[in-house]
Amino acid sequence: MTGKLDGKRIAIIATDGVEQVELTEPRDAVTREGARTELISPAEGEIQAMNGDITPADTFRVDLTAAEVDAADYDAVILPGGTVNADRLRMDPHVREFLRAVVTAGTPVGVICHGPWTLVEADLVRGRTLTSYPSLRTDIRNAGGTVVDEEVVTDNGLVSSRSPDDLPAFCATIVEEFAAGAHQASATA
Amino acid sequence: MTGKLDGKRIAIIATDGVEQVELTEPRDAVTREGARTELISPAEGEIQAMNGDITPADTFRVDLTAAEVDAADYDAVILPGGTVNADRLRMDPHVREFLRAVVTAGTPVGVICHGPWTLVEADLVRGRTLTSYPSLRTDIRNAGGTVVDEEVVTDNGLVSSRSPDDLPAFCATIVEEFAAGAHQASATA
Repeated sequence: MTGKLDGKRIAIIATDGVEQVELTEPRDAVTREGARTELISPAEGEIQAMNGDITPADTFRVDLTAAEVDAADYDAVILPGGTVNADRLRMDPHVREFLRAVVTAGTPVGVICHGPWTLVEADLVRGRTLTSYPSLRTDIRNAGGTVVDEEVVTDNGLVSSRSPDDLPAFCATIVEEFAAGAHQASATA
Repeated sequence: MTGKLDGKRIAIIATDGVEQVELTEPRDAVTREGARTELISPAEGEIQAMNGDITPADTFRVDLTAAEVDAADYDAVILPGGTVNADRLRMDPHVREFLRAVVTAGTPVGVICHGPWTLVEADLVRGRTLTSYPSLRTDIRNAGGTVVDEEVVTDNGLVSSRSPDDLPAFCATIVEEFAAGAHQASATA
């Protein structure tokens, strides 16, 4: 059986507070197409996922820490949401460095819900068009991004969606964008 | 017995995800000095507090909704943190309207940790000097505020602190600022 993402290595970057379905559904969508995913986090061990931000759900084992990975080894990156997850990820310098290298290389990125906060912190939304959960749109605009209110937005390899409700469209679009491969390096990089 | 805040009516604005000690310790500090506090939230019922953002703690009964209160009835306002709490509060138009009226009137405000996100959303940090939890300092700067890294900062009636570790200094300072009463209206209002 041939998948659209056969042989692709995809980083999922998340930590405690990740919204569970925003981790599992994109992961399952890309693995169904033949990709291999790795969960990358600021620290080793397990992370605590949440349902609806405040109800603890399952835990997930971290494969590699952000400090020990090389952006050049990955074909695509997924940034799930979860308010606390994104709030913590943005504070990790290795995560920000990884994302800057990914965007500079034109590697496709899928980001959903509160995920864009980490891109705001790494100054990677300036000049880009994306969507997000409503709460952080002011932060994205203040960081120089253009926010639109659509279920899925694609801007030169950056795929974004608003919330778990958008997961069907988000998952379908990241599969296509990840299959297309690296884009030309972003003007913001 | 005479308290420094006898007769003062103080609004605590919070919702689900509030960091429990950032609600209870400031509340207890002002009530010990004779103030009466009211828990104001976007919706009626109870709110779920958290410890360390991801462990559910106690619930607290809401006294009044943000839609039904008048800023002119309050002598001071406390904005506790908690990542999810602040993320949700900033989306409520009644909360933002209440805070704009409070700042316009020069009513003293105490804000801690992630609390300033709601002030960012209401465009109330422009030209102000404050502190916050590290994760949202970029958002505050991008919204026109000046961020300093001190345990407690006072700027014309706006008292701010960084995290639960700063609670002793925060509580002592809000008592003094709330006792001093309304300041001249802010230039940002």
